[in-house]
Amino acid sequence: MSNSFGNLFRFTIFGQSHAPAIGVTIEGLPAGSPVDLAVLQAFLDRRAPGKSPLSTARKEADIPELLSGLGPEGRTCGAPLTFLIRNGDTRSGDYEPLRFVPRPGHADLPAMLRFGEDRDYPGGGQFSGRLTAPLCIAGGIAIQQLELLGIRVEAKILSIGGEKDPERFEETILAAAGEGDSVGGVIECTIHGCPPGIGEPMFGGLENRIAQAVFGIPAVKGIEFGAGFLAAEMTGSACNDPFVPGPEGSIRTEGNNHGGILGGMSTGMPIVFRAAVKPTPSIALEQRSVDIRTGETVPLRIGGRHDPCIVPRAVPCMEAAAAAALYDAILERRCSQNGSC
Amino acid sequence: MSNSFGNLFRFTIFGQSHAPAIGVTIEGLPAGSPVDLAVLQAFLDRRAPGKSPLSTARKEADIPELLSGLGPEGRTCGAPLTFLIRNGDTRSGDYEPLRFVPRPGHADLPAMLRFGEDRDYPGGGQFSGRLTAPLCIAGGIAIQQLELLGIRVEAKILSIGGEKDPERFEETILAAAGEGDSVGGVIECTIHGCPPGIGEPMFGGLENRIAQAVFGIPAVKGIEFGAGFLAAEMTGSACNDPFVPGPEGSIRTEGNNHGGILGGMSTGMPIVFRAAVKPTPSIALEQRSVDIRTGETVPLRIGGRHDPCIVPRAVPCMEAAAAAALYDAILERRCSQNGSC
Amino acid sequence: MSNSFGNLFRFTIFGQSHAPAIGVTIEGLPAGSPVDLAVLQAFLDRRAPGKSPLSTARKEADIPELLSGLGPEGRTCGAPLTFLIRNGDTRSGDYEPLRFVPRPGHADLPAMLRFGEDRDYPGGGQFSGRLTAPLCIAGGIAIQQLELLGIRVEAKILSIGGEKDPERFEETILAAAGEGDSVGGVIECTIHGCPPGIGEPMFGGLENRIAQAVFGIPAVKGIEFGAGFLAAEMTGSACNDPFVPGPEGSIRTEGNNHGGILGGMSTGMPIVFRAAVKPTPSIALEQRSVDIRTGETVPLRIGGRHDPCIVPRAVPCMEAAAAAALYDAILERRCSQNGSC
Amino acid sequence: MSNSFGNLFRFTIFGQSHAPAIGVTIEGLPAGSPVDLAVLQAFLDRRAPGKSPLSTARKEADIPELLSGLGPEGRTCGAPLTFLIRNGDTRSGDYEPLRFVPRPGHADLPAMLRFGEDRDYPGGGQFSGRLTAPLCIAGGIAIQQLELLGIRVEAKILSIGGEKDPERFEETILAAAGEGDSVGGVIECTIHGCPPGIGEPMFGGLENRIAQAVFGIPAVKGIEFGAGFLAAEMTGSACNDPFVPGPEGSIRTEGNNHGGILGGMSTGMPIVFRAAVKPTPSIALEQRSVDIRTGETVPLRIGGRHDPCIVPRAVPCMEAAAAAALYDAILERRCSQNGSC
Repeated sequence: MSNSFGNLFRFTIFGQSHAPAIGVTIEGLPAGSPVDLAVLQAFLDRRAPGKSPLSTARKEADIPELLSGLGPEGRTCGAPLTFLIRNGDTRSGDYEPLRFVPRPGHADLPAMLRFGEDRDYPGGGQFSGRLTAPLCIAGGIAIQQLELLGIRVEAKILSIGGEKDPERFEETILAAAGEGDSVGGVIECTIHGCPPGIGEPMFGGLENRIAQAVFGIPAVKGIEFGAGFLAAEMTGSACNDPFVPGPEGSIRTEGNNHGGILGGMSTGMPIVFRAAVKPTPSIALEQRSVDIRTGETVPLRIGGRHDPCIVPRAVPCMEAAAAAALYDAILERRCSQNGSC
Repeated sequence: MSNSFGNLFRFTIFGQSHAPAIGVTIEGLPAGSPVDLAVLQAFLDRRAPGKSPLSTARKEADIPELLSGLGPEGRTCGAPLTFLIRNGDTRSGDYEPLRFVPRPGHADLPAMLRFGEDRDYPGGGQFSGRLTAPLCIAGGIAIQQLELLGIRVEAKILSIGGEKDPERFEETILAAAGEGDSVGGVIECTIHGCPPGIGEPMFGGLENRIAQAVFGIPAVKGIEFGAGFLAAEMTGSACNDPFVPGPEGSIRTEGNNHGGILGGMSTGMPIVFRAAVKPTPSIALEQRSVDIRTGETVPLRIGGRHDPCIVPRAVPCMEAAAAAALYDAILERRCSQNGSC
Repeated sequence: MSNSFGNLFRFTIFGQSHAPAIGVTIEGLPAGSPVDLAVLQAFLDRRAPGKSPLSTARKEADIPELLSGLGPEGRTCGAPLTFLIRNGDTRSGDYEPLRFVPRPGHADLPAMLRFGEDRDYPGGGQFSGRLTAPLCIAGGIAIQQLELLGIRVEAKILSIGGEKDPERFEETILAAAGEGDSVGGVIECTIHGCPPGIGEPMFGGLENRIAQAVFGIPAVKGIEFGAGFLAAEMTGSACNDPFVPGPEGSIRTEGNNHGGILGGMSTGMPIVFRAAVKPTPSIALEQRSVDIRTGETVPLRIGGRHDPCIVPRAVPCMEAAAAAALYDAILERRCSQNGSC
Repeated sequence: MSNSFGNLFRFTIFGQSHAPAIGVTIEGLPAGSPVDLAVLQAFLDRRAPGKSPLSTARKEADIPELLSGLGPEGRTCGAPLTFLIRNGDTRSGDYEPLRFVPRPGHADLPAMLRFGEDRDYPGGGQFSGRLTAPLCIAGGIAIQQLELLGIRVEAKILSIGGEKDPERFEETILAAAGEGDSVGGVIECTIHGCPPGIGEPMFGGLENRIAQAVFGIPAVKGIEFGAGFLAAEMTGSACNDPFVPGPEGSIRTEGNNHGGILGGMSTGMPIVFRAAVKPTPSIALEQRSVDIRTGETVPLRIGGRHDPCIVPRAVPCMEAAAAAALYDAILERRCSQNGSC
């Protein structure tokens, strides 16, 4: 189902932007897995808005309530974990003008045609970026499990609106915001410490899984691993990473054009991918749309409160998506080993 | 499971490069669906090697035998379709030197660690590009179903080794081959005629599904939709495609930076994606690797018969992967409609 | 995942008996499906305890809170439905003596070995019969959809503790309760109005699906369809139901030994199955168990509040399980039809 | 998909009775798993017909050809196993009279309505009992893996046509055959040596999984675990199996009314279930049916070659289904353990 991700570590996201709540149910964590709620909250805080003048003025406390699955010692009991975040500070009225006028770059038009008049449009409904909060809960818990295995997931911004100098990121965002416009960017995510041999062949490869998860983050329009699109311009002799002896009998590569993945499986080198995030489609500048009742072109000015750039808030989402995909593959790896029951 | 793709239109690939056979079982085609085997063969021929001096000298007839699922009138009976391709002209001896020396850029090293000494390494085993033949069978049948719905899938090469002039593609490949080297390239795939509202939110979106399928094609290292990575450098006002009235009450967009997909769902505009294919890792030039028995660096020269550039043969694979993903989403769309049983 | 059921109409149950809450997320309802919360509550009330001196004294209001997925008009918006029931009136202390002494007939022993010391044991944790409340929410909603299609699901008690006279059911239960003992029973469920051709071959048949759902109700130890175990004693000529012309060009059978299902698919005759419910394992009578700390036999007297017979409360659960399984198969049937997108 | 069973040990059956072939693809066996093809053939021979005058005269060699997945040492390589059985000795003409006249007790009628005129009806198409051969291949391989873990699966006939004396089984079958009739029976399957804690809560329990698999065997109309339907007539004090100390610190039960499963999980006691097999619906005696072209009642005499009792051949099928379900749960158990990658 489209709201779920994963085979063995599986989470199901529910809720809409202006419904009573959003949340997530997480299955497959082995009983006894530690979950540190304070660390999780700190992770969620990286996604939360309202930290700076650069993000939406909507106040989202994003403090999840735990409903099930965790014992008093902070370890999973074997039942699914469910977390709930109440929606508050909603201003559904802001969206009334958008009921029949789809916003360019948004899911509005296909959602109208797909779900009909019963679709929940205020705040973007189930397509709201707010649904990345439950993704970060599931992924944040996966990150905690990976760290126990010595695996660390770390994403960072490579560029904002084409600007690659981190010191000028804020300036670039403010410039766009000042014009009632928005900017996107590129995020790079690196996973350190993943042992080799994780991932499955063909459609269960790490690239397939991570891509499936990452495209679940709204606004992502591309993903590449290792050298990615640049590899398409290289010769084999330049692109292939030679194998060299590593510490303790391991084998490593010189260079990492393969991004830590060959044949869908980890090689033991850092897993590296980059994702392209398009500019926030909700902008204050006037745009052209069509009123679906009349079929006529209408000017559209989007009110409401929107981030001029969601890239900074998408950084932990990228880590969450990658961690969930990897941890799922690690659980799957366990059951492919011969042994006792 | 990693050898399967799809929820409702689901196919499962089996076989290894030098096993007795490879093949595919395809489930979920409605009974009565027409399958034209001659058209399918013509599609498979586009993937087959041996057409020009540019591809591997291994002769792969790639003529599938139909085992089940199709009636005498060429329509499905409701049972799964299974196709078989016998492997022949295998020269497993070519691979003996590679048993303990992983080839750079190949799945060898993680496969050694993942599957142990029982892994099937000759010809690349289950990681062989040969396994794209059954993918093309499943996808080729999906293409036929899509065409009945007025949907057309078409891929083409955008660049080879960085060269963007189609008239110089062959020259670029021959130059690399002449040096015992290889080149990759970029393929663009466009789907025309897809109605709006196909695809599911979040992890079941068209981007997620197509990406999961496309990364099942060996050597793919990146995928982008619409403006893709370029979108990350644009402002929202430039990236958003304005809505305009289309023919017969439809709504279209000016421009197609969104690549025909918003919120994971089709908009009615052409679906456009590009995939980066890395250069063939098997090259004649000497490379460095490590003998896993001794842990020492060894020089590696790969014999056998290999394509200096697999991009031309990957074109129909891209169409197959995209078609399978889209047709699966279309079947899922059908059951989301209210109505009678 | 074990907490989920269904392919297209899919629900995921969460919570434990003494966790903050239990609940369910329901995916796959077509947008615009009507859900009548008052009718749903009336259905849940049939499962709720506390109606008579015969059921547990634990007060479970069982009034679910809707968190997402339903619009103000009472129709689904296309996003998952999530319902929450807060746990209250828990007396976890009742269970402390049971931490190391598994109750005969309960999941305690395998749960200890499966989930270890972090398992949540008070109230039976995730194995509590209380988890049938969310099952009834999902199934109750499926029942509402089936009724719109003219399909009616109805279960009734066939016997209690071997007694087949409904007028003596209460007496039988009271007699067992008076002795600190418990009784089970047999429930028969009939589905009227299901059109023919629903269900899939082999492992996706209606029998397979209904059985998988029904064994999710605690205490069920057997299921049979149509003549069931009696069919094993019949001759083919007696067991086969002859086909006869029905109204409006339909075909019906004389007799219904096949229970409305042949080859896993509905025939158009009433679907009939019976399930065996074992007696409540929690009884006041002293039993023998083993203290897992010492490995020694200990006498066990179970305190707490328990139903002397859960059969009456299991009746709506049976309807819920059957309806969910059937509605899922109906959605799957829709996407097996040729047609437009 | 309905032709597939299992989550981690997953097999997909293909083929129809009179198609070129039937077969199965098996995924999820850890690389290095031994598969003894001679032992497998001996297992399949138990299902094969033609051993005695009691079974169909159709000669089915049932010698599968291995297409992929197994190395020269008889150990799996990590790729899926595919087996093929060519269909031969088909007499499709026998079935022409049945094209428009559904056979009572068969899948014919719902298949006509479900798959339309393209359904493959000769020999029962995909609903043929012949499809239990690939089930036995998958299950036979699961049995071999279980035996390596000290787990043994053993089924036997409890009754034939109501007759419980094994010495009179053959006589009972011959008597029915002599009258152009058929008989069914009850099969009991016991799994010895399964460690405790296998199986998942709720819908992933061993009972749910085994039932889902067993109802995939044509003609099964009921299943019960442990005391089964008899439990519904017992009191709790009689039905509960007291815990007692077992060897080496284990805990066992006195009696086994629970059939080795509590809360969906194994307890360490033998897993015991019984399945009801209805009499073969194809009988020589004249029956009444309806010609779907005219809607009128017609007499039906079924020619062709049919077993008067399929119960003996269903015995290994029962073992196969149970073993596949259990082995799948064992693989799932492995990934629920905390530990390293």
